[in-house]
Amino acid sequence: MRIWNEYRHERERDEVSRIYPKGIHETIAERLRASPDFEVETSTLDEPEHGLGEKALENTDVLFWWGHGAHAEVQDGIVDRVAQQVLAGMGLVVLHSAHYSKIFRRLMGTNCSLVWRESGEKERVWNLAPAHEITQGIGDYFEIPHSEMYGERFDIPQPDKLIFVSWYSGGEVFRSGCVWERGHGRIFYFGPGHETYPIYHDANVQRVLENAARWARRRISRSTNEAPNRPSPIEGGALWTR
Amino acid sequence: MRIWNEYRHERERDEVSRIYPKGIHETIAERLRASPDFEVETSTLDEPEHGLGEKALENTDVLFWWGHGAHAEVQDGIVDRVAQQVLAGMGLVVLHSAHYSKIFRRLMGTNCSLVWRESGEKERVWNLAPAHEITQGIGDYFEIPHSEMYGERFDIPQPDKLIFVSWYSGGEVFRSGCVWERGHGRIFYFGPGHETYPIYHDANVQRVLENAARWARRRISRSTNEAPNRPSPIEGGALWTR
Amino acid sequence: MRIWNEYRHERERDEVSRIYPKGIHETIAERLRASPDFEVETSTLDEPEHGLGEKALENTDVLFWWGHGAHAEVQDGIVDRVAQQVLAGMGLVVLHSAHYSKIFRRLMGTNCSLVWRESGEKERVWNLAPAHEITQGIGDYFEIPHSEMYGERFDIPQPDKLIFVSWYSGGEVFRSGCVWERGHGRIFYFGPGHETYPIYHDANVQRVLENAARWARRRISRSTNEAPNRPSPIEGGALWTR
Amino acid sequence: MRIWNEYRHERERDEVSRIYPKGIHETIAERLRASPDFEVETSTLDEPEHGLGEKALENTDVLFWWGHGAHAEVQDGIVDRVAQQVLAGMGLVVLHSAHYSKIFRRLMGTNCSLVWRESGEKERVWNLAPAHEITQGIGDYFEIPHSEMYGERFDIPQPDKLIFVSWYSGGEVFRSGCVWERGHGRIFYFGPGHETYPIYHDANVQRVLENAARWARRRISRSTNEAPNRPSPIEGGALWTR
Repeated sequence: MRIWNEYRHERERDEVSRIYPKGIHETIAERLRASPDFEVETSTLDEPEHGLGEKALENTDVLFWWGHGAHAEVQDGIVDRVAQQVLAGMGLVVLHSAHYSKIFRRLMGTNCSLVWRESGEKERVWNLAPAHEITQGIGDYFEIPHSEMYGERFDIPQPDKLIFVSWYSGGEVFRSGCVWERGHGRIFYFGPGHETYPIYHDANVQRVLENAARWARRRISRSTNEAPNRPSPIEGGALWTR
Repeated sequence: MRIWNEYRHERERDEVSRIYPKGIHETIAERLRASPDFEVETSTLDEPEHGLGEKALENTDVLFWWGHGAHAEVQDGIVDRVAQQVLAGMGLVVLHSAHYSKIFRRLMGTNCSLVWRESGEKERVWNLAPAHEITQGIGDYFEIPHSEMYGERFDIPQPDKLIFVSWYSGGEVFRSGCVWERGHGRIFYFGPGHETYPIYHDANVQRVLENAARWARRRISRSTNEAPNRPSPIEGGALWTR
Repeated sequence: MRIWNEYRHERERDEVSRIYPKGIHETIAERLRASPDFEVETSTLDEPEHGLGEKALENTDVLFWWGHGAHAEVQDGIVDRVAQQVLAGMGLVVLHSAHYSKIFRRLMGTNCSLVWRESGEKERVWNLAPAHEITQGIGDYFEIPHSEMYGERFDIPQPDKLIFVSWYSGGEVFRSGCVWERGHGRIFYFGPGHETYPIYHDANVQRVLENAARWARRRISRSTNEAPNRPSPIEGGALWTR
Repeated sequence: MRIWNEYRHERERDEVSRIYPKGIHETIAERLRASPDFEVETSTLDEPEHGLGEKALENTDVLFWWGHGAHAEVQDGIVDRVAQQVLAGMGLVVLHSAHYSKIFRRLMGTNCSLVWRESGEKERVWNLAPAHEITQGIGDYFEIPHSEMYGERFDIPQPDKLIFVSWYSGGEVFRSGCVWERGHGRIFYFGPGHETYPIYHDANVQRVLENAARWARRRISRSTNEAPNRPSPIEGGALWTR
């Protein structure tokens, strides 16, 4: 698997680097590396091809995506390449503010807009799907003491399954854990996370990400970007002519 | 409502103009005009802005889309404009080979590929949703004596509801009637149709299109292309500071 | 349409009859009668056949259901009769504590359990589907100042569409507006409502119920309680024999 | 896992016992026993409690169900017990004519009726979900040379995911592979199968059943048959009193 990060905040703002000194991607990667069956790599925006070369992606079973302030700098050609890999079977885990990334909007087909408030308020994440792979080890709910509010209406296609709904002390709700299949790939959006709150150090959040990495793994690798002609009827017989 | 047609075949190939002398759009429009509550307009690829100016779209409650050989000539900016209108509430009816149009692929987020055979074989369209608005007046099934085979796997997101499944004498099946919501807009994909078979003259097909026009109509008009900030908690109280 | 009420609380407890002097069914019915296109009747538990005779049901396009303390007294044969009518096309609107009614559990196939607290706390009902028929005239959210808390996990099949999610001041969330289709019938579960809070006098709640009555109306009337044999292949040909 | 069979045909009719000498349950069980990670047991209708005692079910991670002529003989109390186990997390694989079993109809909430023809015609099973666990090792389609026709409309709730659609030479289509979640349990309906055709000896069919056994396995064991009260708000504060 591969953790992608735009990796700008952490190099530019002290309040971010204090919490994620090597970058959000490394915080997540370190935790996932604790699973002996995971091979974890990272890529960042400022690498050539954003670290997402054709070969690298073909060998990626799940891609995690963090973006926030630099969505517009991701090249359209790379977005298409990632989208084709998801449709061919690669998993995608979309983190917090990546709701507004090109790749997520591209795969959803919607604007993925939401209401927000940077308020440090309490978020309580309710588990609606206790039998799902992604929630194993998670209780009825868990709390994030200081979070950014992301609220409805979230402009997404109806999820294939709704995993988490968040409650905020300020008064909103949010579909904070959603899964979809697109092509042959599995997609998980997970709301909790922020660059200036230590949310990716939270044990419940880490458990969810580990579970999601297992759930979203590539099962097949088969492009859907072609429309094959089958000139002869399977059942035989001549073609019709006027 | 507005019927959009790339309108090329009909001007270039006799076998098409024999069946649709004024264009596929006019054949469909004529039938819909028989409903006194419908105002029907048409637009074609070679008009300025493809006949899809900002104002025209704002006043469109449902857009029908036929495209086949010239998908690539539709300007990306116009595709974005249509997509934003759908997300804001406009209905979209996607016809046959428009499965491969930019606008349908843009809204689905998938490749929308399928298997095909130009064979003039029999298609039997099974009605799986007899209580749905789109199937009113349609029996358990209807037949198209000569059709192009479109077969699975159709690379689409799971429909919100599956309306029709087609059987082909050559041996394939196809999800030939599917509905989705994206943003505030309703989308209907309908497989039957072809430029050299008189399918849009078929009474069942025409009935489905009329029903779809009613079902897909715009209910609200509200852009989702913005992410509003709500700086103060609804519940009051001070924001958190470190 | 027909409003069904077990109609016991209102006759037994002063705190209920003060708020709903003629019964919850009459409060709802009065409001719906204001729509000139609605014909509204009522039925109650203690009538013969619970007021749900075969003929009455056949002539009902939407049935509203309120039950609370006497679910067990509803006869199983009547529950089957109502279920068959829903499967044949009748709409069903399930109110608050009717989540635990026999008819709702029968049609869902699940236990429909939830977590609850009789606390009079604030409920804020978020509108996730502003283009849906049921939410027309409803804003981004509405508030119920004193409500009973109904919280997740709600043991229901995934809704065909999630309409409302409620936030409670006590800390929970709830899928308080959900729609499903079963057979040819449409079902709406609506959480807000209570026998000792005046929730059915609330203008937003009344608007939702009016919208739901329109949305859920019977479109066809066709039993699904038989498995027809079709002995001859549509495509002709002899049957196979060993 | 446990294979349940009403086990009557095989003891009563030679044409059945020639194909399934030890019963359909044993044919399926033998194949599954080839997987070293599976523990396979069987139960039949005429055993005490139909071989489905409380303890046996608690220790069952997936239950396969074959029934045909004796659905009505299954005791309602046992059906409830099985349903509660599914809702608590046990998987259920519903085979062919068990579409009409009490347990399937109970969990779906619909009549599960369909159109049928005992014709020995060709069935081609199309794989719509090549990335799903259930279709691993299955190609674009597989064929059953002689099958009973089961056709639409199949009165089921919309599947969570549509896995297979069947084409029949007689002219019908059928949603022959469908999955749902109910409570915490996973359910798979699989159309192919018959008592007088050797369909359960088919390699593709066996592969699907093995895959389904893995996919449907119990993940948690938690009853949903109770509605817990949570008397104190998580957020603290006093309850409201009039």
